[in-house]
Order: sequence, then C-alpha cells, then structure tokens
Amino acid sequence: MTRHFDYDEMMELDSFYRRNLINCLSGYKSLNLIGTQSKSGESNLAPFSQVFHVGANPPMVGVLFRPHTVKRDTLENILETGFFTLNHVTQEFYKEAHWASARWEGSEFDGTGIQSEFLNGFGAPFVKNSPVKIACELVESQTLKVNQTVLVIGSISHIFLEEKGLRSDGSIDLNAMDTVTVSGLDEYHRGERLSRLSYAKADQAVQEV
Amino acid sequence: MTRHFDYDEMMELDSFYRRNLINCLSGYKSLNLIGTQSKSGESNLAPFSQVFHVGANPPMVGVLFRPHTVKRDTLENILETGFFTLNHVTQEFYKEAHWASARWEGSEFDGTGIQSEFLNGFGAPFVKNSPVKIACELVESQTLKVNQTVLVIGSISHIFLEEKGLRSDGSIDLNAMDTVTVSGLDEYHRGERLSRLSYAKADQAVQEV
Repeated sequence: MTRHFDYDEMMELDSFYRRNLINCLSGYKSLNLIGTQSKSGESNLAPFSQVFHVGANPPMVGVLFRPHTVKRDTLENILETGFFTLNHVTQEFYKEAHWASARWEGSEFDGTGIQSEFLNGFGAPFVKNSPVKIACELVESQTLKVNQTVLVIGSISHIFLEEKGLRSDGSIDLNAMDTVTVSGLDEYHRGERLSRLSYAKADQAVQEV
Repeated sequence: MTRHFDYDEMMELDSFYRRNLINCLSGYKSLNLIGTQSKSGESNLAPFSQVFHVGANPPMVGVLFRPHTVKRDTLENILETGFFTLNHVTQEFYKEAHWASARWEGSEFDGTGIQSEFLNGFGAPFVKNSPVKIACELVESQTLKVNQTVLVIGSISHIFLEEKGLRSDGSIDLNAMDTVTVSGLDEYHRGERLSRLSYAKADQAVQEV
C-alpha cells in the first residue's frame, strides 16, 4: 500500500510528525561529530548529519547548519576561529555522540566523556577514538535565502585515518572503520556491505569488484 | 597505526587515489536516483549521493552537482523544466542504479531496465519500484564560487511511500524499506540497525527507544 502526501497535506501535519518524516526522506546520512573551540579556548562537540562532499581537487567539504537565530556554538566557533574537525562515530560511542546534542553547560567532551585530542597544532579539537578525523578550515559561509540555513564550505587540511580501513586505491572501508550512519534525527546503523561495483559502462553489465 | 595526510600530500596524490579518498571521507551517504525529463519529453535517470535535507517547514531538499562544464542531463533538465524526483534505491536494483551512471545514448530507464512511472501529473518520472519517491520543484540554483559546483534547492511537493516503512510518528524505517546507502563512489550497503535513541538531555543518559 502506498501512502501519499502532497504539499498541503505536509504543511497540515503535526510539526513533530512532519519533522520526522522530512528528515528521513533523503535516506541514510553521514554522521560526523564536529569539533571546535571558542576564541577563549572552550572546546565544543556536536553531531551533524548534513555534511557532504564538495570536491576532491582541491579537497573540500560542506556543512549545512540550522538558521543562526539562536545560539549555535559550533557555527559561531567556526565563523570566529576558522577551524573545525569532522570525526566519524563508531558503534563503540554512538550513544555518547548522540548525547552530545543535548544542551550542556560546558564542553560536550567533559559532559559525555568523549575524549578530545589536539593534533599537529591544528586549531580545533579532534575526537581521540574516531577512526577517521578530518581537519577543515573555513573557506566560505553563506546564509541560504530560502530558509536562512547557513552553508559552510571548508578546505580539508589534514586527514588522520586508522590504516586498517584505508585501501590501496585510496578508498576507505567504512565497515572496517566501524563507522556509523544515521537515519532521521535519532536512529543509528552500521553498514551491511552488499558489494563494490565496477565503473559503469553502457555496453556491459556492472560487476562486483 | 594512523595514516596522516596534510594538504600538500593530498595534492600530490595520484588523482584517482585522491578522488577515492576524499569521496569516502564524509562517511555513508544517501543514495537517490534522480528522475527528470527534457523539455522534449526524454526521460533521464542518474544516481546521486550529494542529496541533503535543507528544511522541514517548508519541506526542502538540496542537491550538489558537479561543475556544469560538460553536458549534465539531470542538471540541465532541472534548470529547464523545474521538476525532478528523488527515488530510494533498494537491494533489489542497486546494480541497475549504479549502471545508470554510465553514458547512455538514450534514456537510462530503457538502458538499465529500471521502470519509470508518472504520478499525479507531476512533470518528472519516478522509479516505479522505489519504496520512497519524492517530487521536487526547483526553488533556487547557484554556482558555488569555490569550485563551480552547482547547488540546487528544491521544494518537496509530493511524497509517495510504501506504508510498511512509515511509522506512526512520521519517521521512516529504512531497513523495512530496504533502502541502500553508498560509500565513496561505488560501494553499496544496507543498514544494520543499532538503535533509535531518546531525545538527548544533559542530566540523563540516552536510552534506546
């Protein structure tokens, strides 16, 4: 049986129902803990699922933030200091990662017990136990007129990876890294690998590689 | 053992290695087949992994396209007609979905065997066997100065979902839908559910719900 919603029906929905529904629509999403610090050195950590690849040459990533109409520590720290880190979440600490989204008085690192670390003098803290850690420097930010969300583009300046998940062709085995993915606002999953497929060509069927 | 790359090392990498590496960095990504048609009515279908939630009220989604320096049917169809669909991919046809990324003479629907359907008079084709189908209308597009990628924002005008995966609170059970996720450029996975967690509050541990 198919359920259908048109625009008017979507706008008449209970706001919690609509929020759950729309946030699930794109499918499984990347999950990254973003680490920052304020100008006065207070560390901050928060989970984000609107992080996306912008380019490989040069390496860049994008993050979409909710409207800056309330205090938003991560965004403000990025705009003030220019530095942030992205850190994969594993099955081992995904509950603490979710917990980091609560309103904490001080640093989420202290509140949740997630350990921070500073690497190579970079100006934002990393998550010590994360198998994939990415250092980013602010390149550009803009407020999207459509709904006041804020798009931040960062240049990737360092990558730290556990070798166990780095393949010889440069790709990352997320299963080996134990990286977690998120659906909607609050549901967490590991990946159950189907296959990796050959470069697609029209004149031949794709093959598992 | 940790492997480290700084910016200079990233830029010195073999371009295929770097492309694989950087495309894997954000983690598991949403996977959607985007359906469009040209002004002359030729259907088009292509897989995309840079689709992200922009807002729930009103419902909007964003798609980031590679630079429009070569022919890009999906993007051109969206800019010309204003309509596109997003369609989840399942384990049943993820290989055909990947195959749709090849250079096809005509419609990818014909080439791969993926069946199209038109619903409610909407101006772009859907993937018949997709458990989650989303109709989107172009609101805004802009070329990002940082690397000429094109950001498209669409307003969601229809959602068609298989009831089996729609929960009573509006959230979508992606496991029940058999939705597939992608890592890097070519690796496909199902989700292996860990848990859904309660709303995070600082003064209490998160709980599975």
